[in-house]
Amino acid sequence: MKAILFNGELTYTNRYPAPEPQEGEALIRVNMAGICNTDFEIIKGYLGFRGVPGHEFVGIVEKVNGVSHDLSGKRVVGEINCACGVCDYCLKGLKTHCPDRKTLGITNKDGAFAEYITLPVNNLFVVPDNTTDEEAVFTEPLAAAFEILEQIHIRPTDTILILGDGKLGILIALALKLTQADVTLAGKHDNKLMAASNQGVNTIKITPLFPLTKSYDIVVEATGTPEGFEFALQLVKPRGKVVLKSTVAKGKEINLAPVVIDEIQVIGSRCGPFEPALRALSRRLIDVKPLITKIYKPEQAKEAFEKAKEKDSLKVLIDFR
Amino acid sequence: MKAILFNGELTYTNRYPAPEPQEGEALIRVNMAGICNTDFEIIKGYLGFRGVPGHEFVGIVEKVNGVSHDLSGKRVVGEINCACGVCDYCLKGLKTHCPDRKTLGITNKDGAFAEYITLPVNNLFVVPDNTTDEEAVFTEPLAAAFEILEQIHIRPTDTILILGDGKLGILIALALKLTQADVTLAGKHDNKLMAASNQGVNTIKITPLFPLTKSYDIVVEATGTPEGFEFALQLVKPRGKVVLKSTVAKGKEINLAPVVIDEIQVIGSRCGPFEPALRALSRRLIDVKPLITKIYKPEQAKEAFEKAKEKDSLKVLIDFR
Repeated sequence: MKAILFNGELTYTNRYPAPEPQEGEALIRVNMAGICNTDFEIIKGYLGFRGVPGHEFVGIVEKVNGVSHDLSGKRVVGEINCACGVCDYCLKGLKTHCPDRKTLGITNKDGAFAEYITLPVNNLFVVPDNTTDEEAVFTEPLAAAFEILEQIHIRPTDTILILGDGKLGILIALALKLTQADVTLAGKHDNKLMAASNQGVNTIKITPLFPLTKSYDIVVEATGTPEGFEFALQLVKPRGKVVLKSTVAKGKEINLAPVVIDEIQVIGSRCGPFEPALRALSRRLIDVKPLITKIYKPEQAKEAFEKAKEKDSLKVLIDFR
Repeated sequence: MKAILFNGELTYTNRYPAPEPQEGEALIRVNMAGICNTDFEIIKGYLGFRGVPGHEFVGIVEKVNGVSHDLSGKRVVGEINCACGVCDYCLKGLKTHCPDRKTLGITNKDGAFAEYITLPVNNLFVVPDNTTDEEAVFTEPLAAAFEILEQIHIRPTDTILILGDGKLGILIALALKLTQADVTLAGKHDNKLMAASNQGVNTIKITPLFPLTKSYDIVVEATGTPEGFEFALQLVKPRGKVVLKSTVAKGKEINLAPVVIDEIQVIGSRCGPFEPALRALSRRLIDVKPLITKIYKPEQAKEAFEKAKEKDSLKVLIDFR
């Protein structure tokens, strides 16, 4: 099958063996896959992953191995964490934290930059007919945005600042805006800020004149830079909350004293729930189409990744149809 | 009056002018005051404080300026944050975070290592008759321990680890134990661990063989060292909580990625509520007397501070009676 491989460098092949679904797994033909910042981390050597990367996808179930189901032929998206199902974490409902989990295209499992993938049937969610492939492929990152709403109570009267106008920052702004709270996105790119402001999000350009006052109930750090966390601590009110959405905030001397003095809550946030993301897309409450920068064929893998890396790029998709 | 002064160095004087209570303030004759780690930070230059340090006290109200009250002659302890009462924070009940607050013996207000202090009447709490001065002087640090219970929900089935067997770590262990959760105190000092284990707290000696497994629902960082936070992240379960009680965790390269990957909540925690602390002391549910290392007269200020600094010391008190 066609696949984009990472074995120290990124290559395209049309001769990669298609995966076989294990007991309880579905074989899914990928329609479309999205390039995420985590894919760049993988290409830089993050987690030492080798194989097919990619974890944002929409596809069609080709067959299922060994469980009764009605999924064949259905268009689906899928939760990327494949938990063991029997450990303490799994039994407590913390499947995304199962220490033995495999993660699609990230840890020990080939991912979605290929014509076929396998995933446990229980990980799959049927896509409503009114939602296109180009929209449904955003379900996974949009679910990560909804995770914030799973973790903390956001009041309709809260003032919220999201730092970082990348793909995830914009999706977070659009998801949190559903609460009717006062949501502002701060970033450095006019075109990206406009993608959010066109859907009613307040935006601020980050410049050296940015006002450093403690005026937000909640600040979401989505810049992916080590400086973002300290910036957030300068902008959140005492007893406020800082949500960390970036895993790359490391290797920096960080002063945690403001967390104690201002009694801040810092909440780490990762993968999220698919159902509300699919509902918001289907109900046309969040329009992800303006976030698509360009769509490539798998044979154009290198160009696609080059494009996705550009400063002004948002989402780059790979079309396997 | 007698006072212990810090003006670049610590000195004792018996000729310091007694303070005059402002409108709404009480004049309080100090019976007893406690030395806290924050006092050491002040002596090292923390916050640039000059004047009389000291913020843990019990005393007797001598007179009140300009408000109707029934406090004269009453034995009291007092909230150390003197808020402006009119700013946004004060109006929202966040008095301990008032940006214009003065703090007894810490910021812009002479403290309790003196025969007399002043505090707003509204900051004072009457000490029950069955509680001795030696016990009541622990109200302020015990309130800081109770602050954790104000901030997060602790379930009776939670497993909790407190890192650091100093005065505050022990008081936290004793306060959290009231929830009937499974509380363990980890530290390096046999005599301090014993002060907690004698009251039914599980204890573990921190050695190079300390098991680094993610097995606690809640970890409280009370070591006062920058390493404590990273140690806490290695011991807390995914989706667990880390409470930060030390303001000195700075100047260290900290990797925040585990906070995101394990979706940890980090909660900064500072001053707390006096009423439950007084109730727990009065009801004999927490015995603070074994935490008293030695009691000095104010003239012995230097010896008292030297003693308080010793590795095996817990609370050192100054007796002004």
